[in-house]
Formats: sequence, C-alpha cells, structure tokens
Amino acid sequence: MSKSYTVAVVGATGAVGEKMMEQLEKRKFPIQHIKFLASKRSAGKSIVFKGQSYTIEEATPEAFNGVDIALFSAGGSVSKELAPEAVKRGAVVIDNTSAFRMDKDIVLVVPEVNRQDLKLHTGIIANPNCSTIQMVCALQPIKDAFGLNNVIVSTYQAVSGAGVVAINELEAQSLTFGKTKISEAQVLPVKGAEIHYPIAFNVIPQIDTFDDNGYTLEEMKMINETKKIMHMPNLSVAATCVRLPVVSGHSESVFVEVEKAGVSVSDIRSVLESAKGIKVLDNPAKQEYPMPLFAEGQDEVFVGRIRKDLSNDKGFHIWIVADNLLKGAALNSIQIAEVLIEDGII
Amino acid sequence: MSKSYTVAVVGATGAVGEKMMEQLEKRKFPIQHIKFLASKRSAGKSIVFKGQSYTIEEATPEAFNGVDIALFSAGGSVSKELAPEAVKRGAVVIDNTSAFRMDKDIVLVVPEVNRQDLKLHTGIIANPNCSTIQMVCALQPIKDAFGLNNVIVSTYQAVSGAGVVAINELEAQSLTFGKTKISEAQVLPVKGAEIHYPIAFNVIPQIDTFDDNGYTLEEMKMINETKKIMHMPNLSVAATCVRLPVVSGHSESVFVEVEKAGVSVSDIRSVLESAKGIKVLDNPAKQEYPMPLFAEGQDEVFVGRIRKDLSNDKGFHIWIVADNLLKGAALNSIQIAEVLIEDGII
Repeated sequence: MSKSYTVAVVGATGAVGEKMMEQLEKRKFPIQHIKFLASKRSAGKSIVFKGQSYTIEEATPEAFNGVDIALFSAGGSVSKELAPEAVKRGAVVIDNTSAFRMDKDIVLVVPEVNRQDLKLHTGIIANPNCSTIQMVCALQPIKDAFGLNNVIVSTYQAVSGAGVVAINELEAQSLTFGKTKISEAQVLPVKGAEIHYPIAFNVIPQIDTFDDNGYTLEEMKMINETKKIMHMPNLSVAATCVRLPVVSGHSESVFVEVEKAGVSVSDIRSVLESAKGIKVLDNPAKQEYPMPLFAEGQDEVFVGRIRKDLSNDKGFHIWIVADNLLKGAALNSIQIAEVLIEDGII
Repeated sequence: MSKSYTVAVVGATGAVGEKMMEQLEKRKFPIQHIKFLASKRSAGKSIVFKGQSYTIEEATPEAFNGVDIALFSAGGSVSKELAPEAVKRGAVVIDNTSAFRMDKDIVLVVPEVNRQDLKLHTGIIANPNCSTIQMVCALQPIKDAFGLNNVIVSTYQAVSGAGVVAINELEAQSLTFGKTKISEAQVLPVKGAEIHYPIAFNVIPQIDTFDDNGYTLEEMKMINETKKIMHMPNLSVAATCVRLPVVSGHSESVFVEVEKAGVSVSDIRSVLESAKGIKVLDNPAKQEYPMPLFAEGQDEVFVGRIRKDLSNDKGFHIWIVADNLLKGAALNSIQIAEVLIEDGII
C-alpha cells in the first residue's frame, strides 16, 4: 500500500487556491487527511472538496500540527509569518508567493528543470513566478542541447495573475466597450497603489511595483528566478512585463541566443518536442501557434513561432504560452509535492 | 499668397481614409479643390468634409486629371492599378499601402527620420507600415547620438489596423465576455484566410500571412522597412508581431543595442526628449508610461520604460506607443504632403 499524506491548503479561496484543489483531485494526490486554512475573517466558512464539505479553519501556527505538506497561496506576508511555523511542526511547505524565492537557503523548483534541487530543501520549497515557470520549461531543453548565451523576453500577461478582483474588473470594463471611466479602475496595475488604469482595450506595461533601477518587481523576478532555477548566475536575461485584457494564459515573445553555432530551427523544434511538459504547436501553413484562449485549462507549456534570427546565426525567436494559474502556479506546486513523494524526499 | 492644391483621397470611407480627412481639416492643409474617389460600388454616395457634402466619384485613371496630390488608402491592388495612372497625369501619390514600399525606385518616408529622401521621389511616395513608423521615430535620434547595432521588437498591436470590421468583431466578442464561439470569429488574424480566431480576451501571434521563412509579412515589413527608412541595410533587426484586444494604439517592447559604450539611461532620455514628434512619458515613481488607451487621438509617438539592460552595457529597453491610425498612417501621410510643400518639392 502506498503512503498517503496530511495536506493543508492555505488560501484555498483565492484564484490559485481553487486551482490547487482542482489539481489535487484531478491528479489523485494521495491524501489521507486535508484541511483548509485561511485568515480569521474566512474561518468558519465552508468549502467543498471532492464533493465533501469542509469548514475552513483559522491559519494559526498550531493548525499545522500533524500536517505533512502545506500548500501556501495566501500572499507573501502570510507565508512569511506562518511557513516557518509549519516547518517547525514538521510540515514541508510549498510556497506559491515570492516571500522566500530568492533566499539562498530556499530551493526554487520547476520539476522539469531542477527536480534534483528538491533533495536540498530546508523545509520551505518556493514555487517560482508564473511567467518564469513557463519560460524556463522551454529554455532548459534548449540549454541542455545547445547552451544558452542570452535571453530577452517581452510578456503578454493575463489579469488572473492579479486575482479574482482583476478578472471582475476586466469583465465590467469590457461590457461597456471603451466607455470605461478612468475613475472606475480600482485594481490594476497594482492593488493598493495610488493610481489605477483601465485594462479593457488597454495594455499596461507595469506588473507589480517599481524597483529603483526602473524595472518592475515582476521583471526582476523573471530575471533573478531564471538564473537561480537554471543554475546560471551569469546568464544574460532581460524582461519587459506587460498586462493585457486577457483572462487567463500568459504569452511570451522570447529571443534566445544559443552557444553552439549552426543550430537550425528544426534542431530547436526537435529538442522541444521531446521535452517533458512541452507541447510544440508550430505550423504556420495551418495557422497553428499557441494562444492563451486555447491554453486555458491545459497542463502543458505551449511553444510555437520558432524562427531563426535573420541577422544572428545563434539567435532564435520563440512564442511561449501557458495557463498562468496551472503550470504557472497550482499545477507546478502539486507537481513539486508529487516529486517529493516519487523521489522519497518526504 | 501661398499656393493651394487639388487633392484626391482614394479610400476615404476606410478607417485610415476617415482619419486622413480629419487630419487635412485639423492641420488646415492648403486645399484648393478636393475630390473623393472609391470603387464603382461606393461611387455616387455622399461624404462630408469641412461641413460640406461631396459625391464620391469612381476611381478611374481619368479621375486623376488635374490632381496635385493623391492620397491612397484603399488596399494594395487599387494602389498598384491606379497610382501609376495618377502619376502619369501629373499627381504626386502618397500611398498608405504596402504595394510599392520596397521598390528600389520608390522612397519610403517618415518625415522625422528621412525627410531628405522626398527630394528623390519618382511620383509615388510610400507611407511605411504603422508599426514601423513609430519605432523608427524613436530609433533615429538614438542612432544619431549613439549609433545602432541591434534592434529586437515585440509588438502589441490594436485591431483597428485590420479595419473597421475587426473593431466591430472585437466589440461583439467583448460583450459576450469569454463566451464567444470560435465559429463566430470571421476577421482576424487575416481577412479572407481559412481559419479565424477570437480576438477578445485572446492574443494572436499572427498579423498578415506567413512568409516561407516562418516570419509573417508584418514582421518582414518591420524588418525591411526599418532598414530602408534608416538607410541601414545591414542593421540587425528582428520582429515578433502580435495582435491584441485593443481598439487603437500599437505598443512595442524594443531592445536597442547602441554602438557607443558608456551611454546612460538619462543620455537616451535626453535625446528622445529633444526629438521631434516624440513625447517621453517615463516616471515610474508616478506610474507614468505610455499606454494605447491614452495615446488614441494623439499625434505624438510616446516613449517610456527606458531602462538599461542589466547584462549588456550597450543594451537598452524602451516601450513605444502611438496611435496606429494617426502617426502610424493618416498623420504621417499628411505630414509627407506638408514637407513636399515646405521643401518646395511640389
């Protein structure tokens, strides 16, 4: 008989939390017992999982007693306060926030890329940023085969990354088709910021707040997390992160310069086609390429529009799309938990 | 007394044609006489210009008799057939289609960049592609000051570039918020193609049809037109062109590598601030950056998010937004006509 585990989901009512529950059920994760934790405000409410009703408990340090795996997705401050408490009580934490990602003692994992790092975990395992995960899934097989010199990405990110409130705002603004008053924008680009802009029929080149260097934190996450996950601290990576009126599914236009000379488009296509978790959708003659509307609800990272740069023999352009709430968040977290079991780490 | 001219507008009822009429009126273009030409189907209909009603005439070769300046915006095949006829009859043609842009005897002009080329015109003057115009406006001052090695652009293009039918389709799909059936998509990515995809809440990485090299014609236009306008046949330029659910206003995420070492962000900002036709909107602390919703109806090319690459001392990232129907089309055409007059070419 295979082992089963006591799992805690922290932040189950959020956009990612809901997807985590779906994934636990869909992937038949070996659960012996499950509990749902949230702030005092949500405690006492009920939540349905696998057709059974559960009462949400308050997320206190003691609530983690007896928990084997704690899935956190309730914001950075909750993780900072409670993840160490969960670890103290013997749980392994898989944290979907940015709270610990760049700590040098914390592993940051995309199973297809650096599964081996899980063996070095110190209690908390960080789940990378959504836009980082899908990109490194496509970069790693290219690096393994041809080396990697330089990466420049421009993103096309969906509003669901900013939560249910952002989806609701996009819907409300879309229904007035272009007649939205600026004063009605209340969520994007950053909840709680002083200034908000409409997202329907608009493009906002800001995700998260700004760093002193002119980059947004989202851009710095993509840059720093990519280097860490791929174990390439000196890789040249640049990112411009942009929010669009799309509900779910992040797209990325990525320039990749490989180390090896003479690599062809079909070489790149071939390594991507045999890579785990990747689906190549690349047939211009049939107008086949990845799009967010068709990636929604899918597990794979879709890659298409693979072209060679017309001036740089080592340069390639690729187009990467994935469901930001699945592979970009909930699915990757559950896959980490699965590898912990498969590799006998837990 | 300054001279005034007989002007013909071919394709006045299209999205760009309407903007041309607005610009002629707004900029007080010196018109002695104006005529509106269209296909047989539209001939006989009436059209209002400066509060006066005009009857649309059929666009025949003879209709260009006596015309000084002919503004074409009725599709490539109309231009191919009739622009030479207009020139034969003594008109200077300013053509907004792609029909002649890459002909080596035809000048391709953005006044802020290569105004001097107008002196070499051979009757037809080509107006560049919308996404090219706004990019070269920002690149030229950077090149003049610091040289230019490499340009990689990813675009975020509005549907109005695909005409009024595309705007109508975006509106209809937006109002059903995510419940659009694929079968209801009839226009994008390419009118008349076999396959169509919804654009509302989606991102389509295809504009125009595909070339054999895997690039779209829109991407090849950006690459080839940029080299021609900037007189840099060997410039390394790459483009990925993407259509979004935005009504008007194209955005571009551009990586620029300059020749000179040691250039700072404030050096780049400074040359852009003093460049004609450019407005720098770049204050992260105040969340100021260009967005298409706010560029609509504006003449300028807006530039912001100016950052230095974190790995490449000569690399910079900039974000360029302009109204694709104005500076990207109608306004640039009228500005070309104005320079013809100012420089005594006509």
